[in-house]
Amino acid sequence: MHTISDYQRFFLEYLSKKTITKEPKNLYEPISYILNLGGKRLRPILVLMASEIFNGSYEKALDAALAIEVFHNFSLIHDDIMDDAPLRRGKETVHEKWDLNTGILSGDAMLINAYQLFESYEGDTFRELAKLFTKTAIEVCEGQQYDIDFETRDDVSIDEYIKMIEYKTAVLVGAAMRMGAIVANASEKCSASIYDFGRLLGLAFQLQDDYLDAFGDPNTFGKQVGGDIIENKKTILYLKALEFASEDERKQLKGLFSLTPEDPTQKIHTVKYLFETTGAKDQTRLEIEEYTNKAFAVLDKLSISDDKKAVLKLFGEQLMNRNV
Amino acid sequence: MHTISDYQRFFLEYLSKKTITKEPKNLYEPISYILNLGGKRLRPILVLMASEIFNGSYEKALDAALAIEVFHNFSLIHDDIMDDAPLRRGKETVHEKWDLNTGILSGDAMLINAYQLFESYEGDTFRELAKLFTKTAIEVCEGQQYDIDFETRDDVSIDEYIKMIEYKTAVLVGAAMRMGAIVANASEKCSASIYDFGRLLGLAFQLQDDYLDAFGDPNTFGKQVGGDIIENKKTILYLKALEFASEDERKQLKGLFSLTPEDPTQKIHTVKYLFETTGAKDQTRLEIEEYTNKAFAVLDKLSISDDKKAVLKLFGEQLMNRNV
Repeated sequence: MHTISDYQRFFLEYLSKKTITKEPKNLYEPISYILNLGGKRLRPILVLMASEIFNGSYEKALDAALAIEVFHNFSLIHDDIMDDAPLRRGKETVHEKWDLNTGILSGDAMLINAYQLFESYEGDTFRELAKLFTKTAIEVCEGQQYDIDFETRDDVSIDEYIKMIEYKTAVLVGAAMRMGAIVANASEKCSASIYDFGRLLGLAFQLQDDYLDAFGDPNTFGKQVGGDIIENKKTILYLKALEFASEDERKQLKGLFSLTPEDPTQKIHTVKYLFETTGAKDQTRLEIEEYTNKAFAVLDKLSISDDKKAVLKLFGEQLMNRNV
Repeated sequence: MHTISDYQRFFLEYLSKKTITKEPKNLYEPISYILNLGGKRLRPILVLMASEIFNGSYEKALDAALAIEVFHNFSLIHDDIMDDAPLRRGKETVHEKWDLNTGILSGDAMLINAYQLFESYEGDTFRELAKLFTKTAIEVCEGQQYDIDFETRDDVSIDEYIKMIEYKTAVLVGAAMRMGAIVANASEKCSASIYDFGRLLGLAFQLQDDYLDAFGDPNTFGKQVGGDIIENKKTILYLKALEFASEDERKQLKGLFSLTPEDPTQKIHTVKYLFETTGAKDQTRLEIEEYTNKAFAVLDKLSISDDKKAVLKLFGEQLMNRNV
């Protein structure tokens, strides 16, 4: 087994070798641009790691890893258009730097290109990768649609919210690991388990994202603390708070989430107070722990050596402590 | 062999059986909407027809036919956004009826769904269909990019223009026929020939579209005659006219193509006059005939019965006379 930073290096080397700008330039330059904006490369690292976990080589998994990263970046381009986001990783988004049409068309080409990358695999491997990818990609689209729908609904249940983040984010983490397993010819049972491990960890990670947005350490959390509160985003904290709140608290919270004051300091303070007093903060922490533990329970039952389990567990722990 | 209207009926029956609106509704309703807007269903008809030409059943080709139609409609949704088009087949476009985000996301889901439809095919058939589809879909994106790029360039050559319409339109016609051949397990030689037949006919068809836009019979041509001239579109007629024009005529034509008068009658009249006097009209007709003849020459050498050749030839002739 290699280390996480090894996998990252292998992937980045492969990426730089593979991103050549072809004609028409206006289609392919935005693709190189977004693929080289950086990021932790978590998903492709997971593909390479999972391949070695199941005794495959990381080299053979590079095209699947690239496919996942290309797809992830396709979804970033189109999501940034939908969110009207000016910045991505501190740089201009594609539709800002070029224009709307370039964002749409380059994204489309990336989605197709992801499928193209599976063509380096033969027979059943190709078929399995493409099928898993299709299923996952459709779920990501459905998750994005639920996310959009939830913005204008005020009766979103916790279960619906969990399903939304599962589809929008977690299934791609599971699929990344399962692709590594497929490339390594792992058994169906192992493939299904590693998918679940990734999916559950992805859920925990996304819920933690919600948690840290309000309660993270401003010195270590990458984004502005309270960003979701400023934007009135209905995160797990908000939904749990509504669930546990008294009638008065519920009215207060809904009232606060209909405002966008110029100075949000007081609003953030009050909302966080409500998240704490209603028990939403603690319940969210519990939920995160539960998904993390479920992921580790899946890991325990996996038929791989203890060394490999330890590597995956360390990865999970680092991910949840955000050191990856 | 069945007739073209049989194939159309088979396809429409299958389409209505397959378009069920799932959750999330805001993702799937626009997909049902665009797929049921009508149209000639040329591409799926070609898939079914090609399958029977090579002794396969049309039933087995239905999912490939649907994939092609779903992809075609994906490209219509995204193209309509890029062109800011309010209407498609006389009805509101998806981004008009819903919004930009719905258009982007529903389109993305359709592109993925097209791949999903190939999953009903086993082993090599699946792989061949997916590979051909990917190659074609990338070319369609590149063609669309060239089309956008050409709008702001004034040095587009005839060859570049032909390549653009080949990628944007013709390869999908070729791919439709080749998919029928793949489903029917036709030989590589037959598959390659039927692809060429479709591609060449697609080119002839697209060039004829340019021609009819200026010189079609207002009573039978579906669209407004002179539409391309009003929009200053650099069609084959314009490019050929520039090629053959004297220095004065070239200046006049370029001048006219920088204007958008409120009443375009005089402009259309003068431009059509220039298309005629420069010889662009005749040269375009010749080019259309050349591609049509090339398509029929490919057909002649194909190892299928004379009956089947006659069916394909009739289809080509009807297509070029726009009775299909």
